[in-house]
Amino acid sequence: MNRSATSDTEIRFQMTHGNEILNAGALDLRIDATRLAARIAALGAVGAIAGGGVSRLALTDADRGGRDLVAGWMRELGLAVTIDRIGNVVGVRAGTEPGAPVMAGSHIDTVATGGRYDGNLGVLAGLEVIQTLNDAKLATRRPLAVAFFTNEEGARFNPDMMGSLVYVGGLPLETALATVGIDGEPVGNCLKKIGYAGAAPCGKPQVHAYLELHVEQGPVLDLEGITIGAVQGVQGISWTEFTVLGVSNHAGTTPMRLRHDAGYVACAIAHHAREIARSLGGDQVATVGAINLTPNLVNVIANRAVFTVDLRNTDEARLQQAEKRLHEFAREIAATEGVTLTHRTLARFEPVAFDPAVVDLVEATARRLGHPVRRLPSGAGHDAQMLARVCPAGMIFVPSVGGISHNVEEFTALPDLEAGANVLLHTLLALTN
Amino acid sequence: MNRSATSDTEIRFQMTHGNEILNAGALDLRIDATRLAARIAALGAVGAIAGGGVSRLALTDADRGGRDLVAGWMRELGLAVTIDRIGNVVGVRAGTEPGAPVMAGSHIDTVATGGRYDGNLGVLAGLEVIQTLNDAKLATRRPLAVAFFTNEEGARFNPDMMGSLVYVGGLPLETALATVGIDGEPVGNCLKKIGYAGAAPCGKPQVHAYLELHVEQGPVLDLEGITIGAVQGVQGISWTEFTVLGVSNHAGTTPMRLRHDAGYVACAIAHHAREIARSLGGDQVATVGAINLTPNLVNVIANRAVFTVDLRNTDEARLQQAEKRLHEFAREIAATEGVTLTHRTLARFEPVAFDPAVVDLVEATARRLGHPVRRLPSGAGHDAQMLARVCPAGMIFVPSVGGISHNVEEFTALPDLEAGANVLLHTLLALTN
Repeated sequence: MNRSATSDTEIRFQMTHGNEILNAGALDLRIDATRLAARIAALGAVGAIAGGGVSRLALTDADRGGRDLVAGWMRELGLAVTIDRIGNVVGVRAGTEPGAPVMAGSHIDTVATGGRYDGNLGVLAGLEVIQTLNDAKLATRRPLAVAFFTNEEGARFNPDMMGSLVYVGGLPLETALATVGIDGEPVGNCLKKIGYAGAAPCGKPQVHAYLELHVEQGPVLDLEGITIGAVQGVQGISWTEFTVLGVSNHAGTTPMRLRHDAGYVACAIAHHAREIARSLGGDQVATVGAINLTPNLVNVIANRAVFTVDLRNTDEARLQQAEKRLHEFAREIAATEGVTLTHRTLARFEPVAFDPAVVDLVEATARRLGHPVRRLPSGAGHDAQMLARVCPAGMIFVPSVGGISHNVEEFTALPDLEAGANVLLHTLLALTN
Repeated sequence: MNRSATSDTEIRFQMTHGNEILNAGALDLRIDATRLAARIAALGAVGAIAGGGVSRLALTDADRGGRDLVAGWMRELGLAVTIDRIGNVVGVRAGTEPGAPVMAGSHIDTVATGGRYDGNLGVLAGLEVIQTLNDAKLATRRPLAVAFFTNEEGARFNPDMMGSLVYVGGLPLETALATVGIDGEPVGNCLKKIGYAGAAPCGKPQVHAYLELHVEQGPVLDLEGITIGAVQGVQGISWTEFTVLGVSNHAGTTPMRLRHDAGYVACAIAHHAREIARSLGGDQVATVGAINLTPNLVNVIANRAVFTVDLRNTDEARLQQAEKRLHEFAREIAATEGVTLTHRTLARFEPVAFDPAVVDLVEATARRLGHPVRRLPSGAGHDAQMLARVCPAGMIFVPSVGGISHNVEEFTALPDLEAGANVLLHTLLALTN
């Protein structure tokens, strides 16, 4: 073996079979976009639905179909495939040295009416990286792994990112296996039924570094004409459901001063949520996506309003500030209007900051490959945020046309998929060597 | 006959049979509250539903039952009963002189889950006035009529106040008869089926003055501890349905500046509607009672919001001002947010002002009888507003406990019913003499 000092930009390789050293040439290595697109199309055909989308809810027969296809490809590529007890599938390509692999991963389950890129891209681009290295007969120093994690979407079982959460020890296996889905069946049964109740212990192999290529699922890259996003972290999420109880009365006969209008309080809080996002600035976002009034009639003051507020920020302190302002305003307006206000937390996750060195590396790699790149936060949750608990982790985003995701119209143009996969390739190479 | 000059406070009577003059004593005349309560209970038993309410949708078998009962009482009291072609029922007690009668009226149809006072009170208190005069052997100079009008509620057939609207020539009879109800049957058929397709021409007899006793259906009198409302008029009504079309996107990944949030625009307009009512003051009210977001999910920016704004004012110019401000704000916020905004008018009625002399008379009569009284507008529509098109008209309100109406819990205490009926009696006496 021939070793030398490594840096972000100086990458050295070795032949897997034989001793040929291939330091030169590796920088020009590129994935095969057509082959990647063919795998995306083939996986997209499993559970295909009208409009070009897919429906492969976690641990359904459709998911089994997708898993079998991808695990088959892993084996064809010579990876050592293990399935752990929560159904995570990891394929490892040996390195020239033993040790924890650098992992490329994501998920292949989808929402009920999903697209073919969300999750799938990260896994299939990982396989494309493996095949590119195989074809070039290039070895990496550290092992390289490709993984797909169980139930990332959470569309059938709560919580989402379940497989990666169990992988990093954030959720007891038994709890996860006992989790009952929207159709009443527990995860454990479903895993057995589809043949993915594996024997491997969860959390093995240990991961040296983790990198996830994913479609942005937001509009920023598409609107700004930027090809690569170097993801700085995942926003913290705060979901609150408010219930306002007022008094129903006639919309004509009840003077304004005598009203206890649950609908007004809901709208005032929704209106203020926008103001909170505006005044905090930065990447603070606030969304009132669901409002339900009772009795919901034109001429009756609502006696009940149930609505949700979704707050997100990459900065935990600022997210807490947003929550504080929201609840202060809500309490004030409820008192003024003379209504009862209660709330419950539907979800609360602290922000995750990805490893700065990995973020730097993604950005530098994209730049070196000639792609317009910007740093940005992820507004959605991803398996990478779970892996970030146990190893340096990062993500690469490529544009989602129109920011559309979780929708059959989700689309990323092939040149962007190709760019993302090449950034994945070269960032992985940098991390493995 | 013995005549003398009359005034609001000096009321003179004559015996119907014979020439005895009963100027003295008339001021002390009072209705029999127990008898009134008994009639309310008896009518409330027709179509009774759980919780003390009634369900007598217009022109149903239950309505026939109510009509038969009340028309029977009219005949027992010696009234000359006519049924017109839209099913309005008028019972006339002759005066000592011929001419157009002074009419007490209201309706006896109810909403599907209504109370036993709404409408019913005005009709039954009218009968109680007749019986009180009969018992006292008192004649009035002008004839006195008691009427109930078809389909005031509009709960089965649109528009509401149909019978009184036809009575005053505001809606062609043929149009009304052809109106198809929520169950698919036209008014004309239903009238025949229940035996109330009368032969009398609509609009006869002509009415000299019209007075309607009604429960307030709002909270003002109850909250202020006032027994009698001298109703100044009926608020004008402006109902608008807005549809906002934005773009659905991920609540986490879409920066605030890139949003086209239909839900936010709906809430901002709803919030502003309250501000319009606050700044216009007076009796301007504004209600956003119905909001429907699509897809209505916690983490998805709504692409569609449909919501209603109910604006009312007794002053047409101010109502128009409220509408103008509403639409200006709606256009502005829609443009700022980059959403499409359309609207349609669901209902638009100009305010009705009752005859100032009648309002004065109601107020003075209540005061003379020792009842706390205040002027107030009606927020709901009533047959009186239709009659106001053809004669001096007015209304007397009595408190609705908690402002509750169109609900089985609708309730007015017996002393208030009694006070209202006595004010009706003496105001009618003043109007007939």
